[in-house]
Amino acid sequence: MAQEMADETTIVLYLFKRLHQLGIRSVHGVPGDYNLVALDNLADAGLNWVGNCNELNAGYAADGYARIKGISALITTFGVGELSALAAVAGSYSEHVPVVHIVGTPSTLSQKMGAILHHTLGNGDFSVFANMSRNISQIVVNLNDPTIATRDIDRALKACCVTAHPVYIALPTDMVLRKVSTKGLDTPIDISLHPNDPKIESDVIENITQMIYGANNAIILIDACAIRHRVVEEVHDLIDKSQLPAFVTPMSKGDIDETNSRFGGVYVGSVSRSDVKEAVESADLIISIGALKSDFNSGGFTYHTSTKHTIELHSDYTKKLLSLLDFHRIRHTEGAKSDLPELKNEDMEKIETREITHSWFWPHIGNWLEENDVVVTETGTANFGIIETRFPKGVTAISQVLWGSIGYSVGACQGAALAVKESQSHFPRRVILFVGDGSFQLTGNEVSTMIRQGLKPIIVIINNEGYTIERMIHGENAGYNDIQPWKYTKFLEAFGAKEYANYVVRTREEVDKLFKKGNEFSKANRIQLVELFMPKLDAPRALKITGKMSEMLNAKMAVLDS
Amino acid sequence: MAQEMADETTIVLYLFKRLHQLGIRSVHGVPGDYNLVALDNLADAGLNWVGNCNELNAGYAADGYARIKGISALITTFGVGELSALAAVAGSYSEHVPVVHIVGTPSTLSQKMGAILHHTLGNGDFSVFANMSRNISQIVVNLNDPTIATRDIDRALKACCVTAHPVYIALPTDMVLRKVSTKGLDTPIDISLHPNDPKIESDVIENITQMIYGANNAIILIDACAIRHRVVEEVHDLIDKSQLPAFVTPMSKGDIDETNSRFGGVYVGSVSRSDVKEAVESADLIISIGALKSDFNSGGFTYHTSTKHTIELHSDYTKKLLSLLDFHRIRHTEGAKSDLPELKNEDMEKIETREITHSWFWPHIGNWLEENDVVVTETGTANFGIIETRFPKGVTAISQVLWGSIGYSVGACQGAALAVKESQSHFPRRVILFVGDGSFQLTGNEVSTMIRQGLKPIIVIINNEGYTIERMIHGENAGYNDIQPWKYTKFLEAFGAKEYANYVVRTREEVDKLFKKGNEFSKANRIQLVELFMPKLDAPRALKITGKMSEMLNAKMAVLDS
Repeated sequence: MAQEMADETTIVLYLFKRLHQLGIRSVHGVPGDYNLVALDNLADAGLNWVGNCNELNAGYAADGYARIKGISALITTFGVGELSALAAVAGSYSEHVPVVHIVGTPSTLSQKMGAILHHTLGNGDFSVFANMSRNISQIVVNLNDPTIATRDIDRALKACCVTAHPVYIALPTDMVLRKVSTKGLDTPIDISLHPNDPKIESDVIENITQMIYGANNAIILIDACAIRHRVVEEVHDLIDKSQLPAFVTPMSKGDIDETNSRFGGVYVGSVSRSDVKEAVESADLIISIGALKSDFNSGGFTYHTSTKHTIELHSDYTKKLLSLLDFHRIRHTEGAKSDLPELKNEDMEKIETREITHSWFWPHIGNWLEENDVVVTETGTANFGIIETRFPKGVTAISQVLWGSIGYSVGACQGAALAVKESQSHFPRRVILFVGDGSFQLTGNEVSTMIRQGLKPIIVIINNEGYTIERMIHGENAGYNDIQPWKYTKFLEAFGAKEYANYVVRTREEVDKLFKKGNEFSKANRIQLVELFMPKLDAPRALKITGKMSEMLNAKMAVLDS
Repeated sequence: MAQEMADETTIVLYLFKRLHQLGIRSVHGVPGDYNLVALDNLADAGLNWVGNCNELNAGYAADGYARIKGISALITTFGVGELSALAAVAGSYSEHVPVVHIVGTPSTLSQKMGAILHHTLGNGDFSVFANMSRNISQIVVNLNDPTIATRDIDRALKACCVTAHPVYIALPTDMVLRKVSTKGLDTPIDISLHPNDPKIESDVIENITQMIYGANNAIILIDACAIRHRVVEEVHDLIDKSQLPAFVTPMSKGDIDETNSRFGGVYVGSVSRSDVKEAVESADLIISIGALKSDFNSGGFTYHTSTKHTIELHSDYTKKLLSLLDFHRIRHTEGAKSDLPELKNEDMEKIETREITHSWFWPHIGNWLEENDVVVTETGTANFGIIETRFPKGVTAISQVLWGSIGYSVGACQGAALAVKESQSHFPRRVILFVGDGSFQLTGNEVSTMIRQGLKPIIVIINNEGYTIERMIHGENAGYNDIQPWKYTKFLEAFGAKEYANYVVRTREEVDKLFKKGNEFSKANRIQLVELFMPKLDAPRALKITGKMSEMLNAKMAVLDS
């Protein structure tokens, strides 16, 4: 009998212990009465509860956490809570980020009765919200039957890991503490991919290797799905062994070591810098890894590359290919290196105007960034500006180029900073957020959670009087692109920070003065906020072009089928 | 030709002019590149753009605006924007509030191509978000064909008005300025109900009148759908002419004049005050109007009334019944009036303890409220506390008893205050918000929009150290019910308010001192914030009971079908 007891656990503890096995240490979310009993059990599984300000922020934070840790979990309550998080979860789906969304639902009895409970539509329909999430989840499971609950948990978590898409797990209040066997916990969740048919695979690999051996100036183009499907190490290996020039897209910026002599720059179709464009588009073979060709990731669909000469690789093939390539047979050009500003480029110090412009700022901060920094940029000017920043080694970049939800970066910064804090070994990684004032107004309350969790990012708020990204698309001076002027330097105190610092920089000189403060600023052991003023109508080069392309595309009507 | 031009307008102007005809003067939402061209046209239709801090807030604000004006509109952008608003729109669906949700979508060309645009899931599926909204909308229309666009607009707006449910209108960027005929605009949208079968109706009315004439102590019980389906005037008529005692539920509190001598109090099942419970449950006939028996609206489903002796009326019947009842034949009791504290009840001044407790506070503010105040209460202690407040004549109460999304009230207060400002005739109506600290942390940024729109509500933040409503359900001292301590009196300044006042009240004496300031506080021409401290574990009586009922229900498992 005692033996039998020892082999039992509860559904919730099984789930939480599985999350722990996958590397999760903190769970994001907001409490609600349908998830409270579940939350009681987090500590027993070694999990920390974050307690975000709202569910949308929690979802963004979970996404940011997963981009550092590989996976994350989000707990919300039925109806009101889960729906508030949908825009964030959809973003994780869109951008291939594995987030486990656990929703505390009413008891199976209430559901069976069709009770008109609070947090329902008042129509007795308890499936409606799960159905809404079905559209943005790889899989939806409902843990309403203890006899199959552990199997369903494992099935959902496997799907999350393998596809790098969110999954939805409904946990009814009365199921939380139901007993299940601990047996499954002894075996790690199998996250291996379904193997390719060996014959087809070997044919494909043979074709690919022959194409590579036959090319005179092949290049490697790395995109978002390389890191999302965990082949970045293999890609680095491929670059080093093949010595082929390697380029990234905006969505994969930061995934490849930019100090590597074979790193060529950021390819964004016709929006690319001319040397990058030339190098990529003149290549006779493009080895494309993890492509995700969205509008803002491809310069408005302006790739001028021939699909005949492109090899599209995804995670499984990349691994196999590495082991089979004979690198001596690969011809590669020299001198394909991009002329992006070097680190420590003294030219950048020549100040012609005092204003902080985008063309000055983004290359400039490459000199201030440090190895292993985590740089979070917001949808807006920052996402386009960061293309022009040369990263030191080991920098991780977090942004949302495809989903592009403004406000994302503040939540993501909280999640990333927490993940970094948990992963801290011998070297401390800084987390630096660049967010526009308009975007900050959506989710700025999440700075409160950073403070509460003892996180110490540097938050740079670009004050340029509203939604500049939209001004570049339409309504340059329209009132709807204006915002309420906030006093940004008042918020750290208002959110209850005890140790903190605020800075205001209006000129290039003041930026440099701040960067030269040394450890007092650059390595300060406190949360810091920089209000950085930029001209209202200035924007990074790539945004100016992309914005006009978007406006034109928006105006185009389909020819109706007759 | 000139004539032909004069009879033409654009799809967007047709839509916006229809909104104006329905009484809408301000449109809530957040700009995004797929709706910018549409926003250019608001002013030409006489509509003001609010520009909320985020879409969830905008949705809550639209809901609050509709509760004053009868209908409202919300504009978001495809994917990121619309999904962020879903929890608010679902709340409007749940609580029967008519909100027109207009979503700017990518051009019909982009959709036809299946382009991987920003704000998509990257899978070329452009129907997924509209399908998610289908679950919480009365109707979904896509204005992708100019030949039927005006018909679809009218169809959607009619459905919104008649059913008091949200509707979803997709407006592709390339359709915004397409020409359509102005003809429809000459005829107001038909919002009449489908007529009942005359024979069945007259039989039903005959049965009802006979039941009423036969009863010895009938009562009237008014619920949420009375005001949502616009029969409040008729209900007042029925009370005055029949002289039957009238009771409200928490969801209809404020809809009936509480100074009317026949007003009996708030019925919440077994959670009701004993005299109210006795009066309702001993009645031999209940004339129930617009019932919406959700858990928190019914004391956890504890109505002790016999359905045999209940007449359930909805809007159409109420109107007809009024014209056919012979009021001389109705027997009514005297003295059914509730013993809720009278206005100016001097007993409430006897202070036994200095702490501001719920049992002291909520009856007490009845003495401070004025005629025609708009009182917004948050899901949490305020929603349960307000049951104990006797309202002066003409007070409108706004809350979300069924949907119960925390954070709702801040957005709703913005929308309601704007609607009140627009409707202002000779008398100014005050707007007063009671929100808990935990809830304020979700959506407090919307105070910024209040400031931007020149609104001057009194915002009372109940500081009781976290989610007290949840402590009453489960986890009384659990860490997940704690929140980051904010300095609430710093926010008006941080959000850029120029004229404002902050107050902190910690004792009953300080509450009274504030209330006695007279016009300096009670009628001040500026936005004001009151941080009001209450004990962490104190709660209104009704919440203490309902919380425990919820916890028990949450633990109950359905008997599985064999």
